Amino acid sequence: MTRQLHLNAFLMNTGHHEASWRLPESDPYAHVDLAHYVGLARIAERGTFDSLFLADGPQLWNNLAQRPAGALEPLTLLTALATATEHIGLIATASTSYNSPYNLARKFASLDIISGGRAGWNIVTTAGAEAARNFGLATEPAHAERYARAAEFLDVALKLWDSWEDDAIVADKAAGIWGDDTKIHPPRHQGTYFSVEGALNLPRSPQGYPLLVQAGSSDDGKAFAARYAEAVFTAQQTLADAQAFYTDLKSRTRRAGRDPEHLKVLPGIVPVLGSTEAEARAHEQVLEDHIVPEHARARLENLLRLPPGALDLDQRLPDDLPPESAVEGAKSRYTLVVELARRERLTVRQLIGRLGGGRGHLTFAGTPEQVADQIATWFTQGAADGFNIMPAVLPSGLAAFVENVVPLLRARGLLRTEYGPRRTLRERYGLPRPANQHTAALV
Amino acid sequence: MTRQLHLNAFLMNTGHHEASWRLPESDPYAHVDLAHYVGLARIAERGTFDSLFLADGPQLWNNLAQRPAGALEPLTLLTALATATEHIGLIATASTSYNSPYNLARKFASLDIISGGRAGWNIVTTAGAEAARNFGLATEPAHAERYARAAEFLDVALKLWDSWEDDAIVADKAAGIWGDDTKIHPPRHQGTYFSVEGALNLPRSPQGYPLLVQAGSSDDGKAFAARYAEAVFTAQQTLADAQAFYTDLKSRTRRAGRDPEHLKVLPGIVPVLGSTEAEARAHEQVLEDHIVPEHARARLENLLRLPPGALDLDQRLPDDLPPESAVEGAKSRYTLVVELARRERLTVRQLIGRLGGGRGHLTFAGTPEQVADQIATWFTQGAADGFNIMPAVLPSGLAAFVENVVPLLRARGLLRTEYGPRRTLRERYGLPRPANQHTAALV
Repeated sequence: MTRQLHLNAFLMNTGHHEASWRLPESDPYAHVDLAHYVGLARIAERGTFDSLFLADGPQLWNNLAQRPAGALEPLTLLTALATATEHIGLIATASTSYNSPYNLARKFASLDIISGGRAGWNIVTTAGAEAARNFGLATEPAHAERYARAAEFLDVALKLWDSWEDDAIVADKAAGIWGDDTKIHPPRHQGTYFSVEGALNLPRSPQGYPLLVQAGSSDDGKAFAARYAEAVFTAQQTLADAQAFYTDLKSRTRRAGRDPEHLKVLPGIVPVLGSTEAEARAHEQVLEDHIVPEHARARLENLLRLPPGALDLDQRLPDDLPPESAVEGAKSRYTLVVELARRERLTVRQLIGRLGGGRGHLTFAGTPEQVADQIATWFTQGAADGFNIMPAVLPSGLAAFVENVVPLLRARGLLRTEYGPRRTLRERYGLPRPANQHTAALV
Repeated sequence: MTRQLHLNAFLMNTGHHEASWRLPESDPYAHVDLAHYVGLARIAERGTFDSLFLADGPQLWNNLAQRPAGALEPLTLLTALATATEHIGLIATASTSYNSPYNLARKFASLDIISGGRAGWNIVTTAGAEAARNFGLATEPAHAERYARAAEFLDVALKLWDSWEDDAIVADKAAGIWGDDTKIHPPRHQGTYFSVEGALNLPRSPQGYPLLVQAGSSDDGKAFAARYAEAVFTAQQTLADAQAFYTDLKSRTRRAGRDPEHLKVLPGIVPVLGSTEAEARAHEQVLEDHIVPEHARARLENLLRLPPGALDLDQRLPDDLPPESAVEGAKSRYTLVVELARRERLTVRQLIGRLGGGRGHLTFAGTPEQVADQIATWFTQGAADGFNIMPAVLPSGLAAFVENVVPLLRARGLLRTEYGPRRTLRERYGLPRPANQHTAALV
């Protein structure tokens, strides 16, 4: 069989374009409407996507004036979606800096059980002082410190998920013996950031533990991904950059002692479709025309760590921006935006237009055939194992992709035509179920 | 209209009797089976119950050998149940000692939004060193300390739930203004246990915040309930004790400056039904016969803070047990068990039989008419506003109650015959929607 493409639907209220909520078709209350998300999940299932995904941060991101703010907590929302869908994987973002391993490991195990093995965890360390101040810290922990904590968090979580052997339940009613206590392995973890004594209060879940996903592209982020991640979301602007990232991450994974096939690289793309190129471009222009430039400038200043009003809409970025090494959060996003502006000599206003749709992710625009060609090119030329699909407008952009691009990908033999029997998320991505660390040696 | 009885279904895998899992009808994997819980929720909805409830603690409670251990995380499970039910309230236990206010406030707001205003929070401080050691502590925090933290936790959570005024979303597409930032009120809380700066990242939910429920009956627990709780679960063994508790809690509520009608007292009862008294007693005996006495003795020793093997099955409890004031957790349960054993001069074996069904809660046994009589007596004689129904065996015990007792309660005009239009959990309990603290003065 031809190597198969993996598709993930990155859901975000009315869409990834910051002005999408202003379109006549959009519901400004979509972010708190379960029915909206159920509808999106069902469209993605019609497109036989591997998974859907929710980003998150434990803080109010932006001023309310600008655009929809706030979101249902992802693990909660995905549990509701688990009951409304049958096949699609459910990937929730959760922070290693602002959760405790026992609670979070249990929530993901619960979602994995409730969904029949469809849970995934997008592991984030959460940049920004705003989040830190919601959890008792005065300032943002340093980037390296956040990643050190994340690594210990993962080690503890893996111990908790393996704290029940798969066959710990005996269920011998006649003898009055429900389980075998010799098959319980309390972590007894004493580390730098955490001490966690006891076993999880849940049996091992269908997947063993959720699919582990990661999206940091900084050096710390890539090292973390090579060690733990099974899927990586990334923002790449050119085929060459994407190939370099892909090759680098696969070789890091090999050097970490893992099979590079067991880490799937999924660049984010914003598909913009029209029956002609001109129609696709017109769709983009309508969205750009709805951006309020002052709002977008304020966010760009925040990303670049500049004071309010520092940027002029009709000038290029200043030359004396600090290097990435001086930035404590969202390092790779910072560099991507600065490089995009310099490479294409964009004014701040032009840069804002380019960022509005995918916040640094690549737009694939054109007819369905052209978009399918771009996907196939990246997929076959060593730049991607699949894609994180980020429609500018939801639900219409996802529906258009499923109705127009998905059939072309299927016709080329790159994408499944149906789900077939129920399978776990990890099986959809072609990954093995992890063995329990206490029994692996015996298998 | 006659004063209406409130019913809550306390769900627990195969039932509240520790030996229930051994019956032929029981599924030993029920605790991880969503379909089992969906079935229970639908039975409770047939009985027009106000709510259902899940207890919880963030630790593995007992040895696996004894009986089913572990449980799906309650907020996760209830979110799944929200999509499978339409009317019933959903009350999750969550700990103020082992959560952070920002995360927990957001999860409850998410459940309240997803369920259309049916969320409730059973606030617990979580006794026991086992839980403490799963969250980086060497020992259990002192009882008073846990309650001080709980009170500050509630104050912060209430600030977070009120951090958006109800009309903060403007949704003016033409002007490009989504929300009104002047209607956002960051807590800026700096306290003893928590500092939380920013507003919640969710709009105010249908109920404003979840119904607040509490179950501690110690002096600290009652003081906390009088200040915050809208419903109280309690274990009372006699009508006189229940009346005293009811009167005490209502007058504490009045003294705290609240309307006593805004706190509902719900004693836990284990209904055991038969077409005759003898048949009901036979049902109890079958369950008692399935108890493994050594397991039950070990748990009793743990509750009484005695070393393993300290109790003799055929002797009474020792006379020199420490006073309640020396116990750091589950104070009221401790006293209830000791008093029950002394009042009825029970041997350890007999005490175990009495505790097996409801772990200290009262059994109402007999024909449906007799059980309905007992309920009506407690309800009309100042002992209860309703009941926490704790069937010994699930689902059969809940189904038997709904099919046989509920029609009698309805015929007496004590219980609704149908739900009618969709309402919030707080409306079901006859409680007002709380005003936002930032706008209350203006109403």
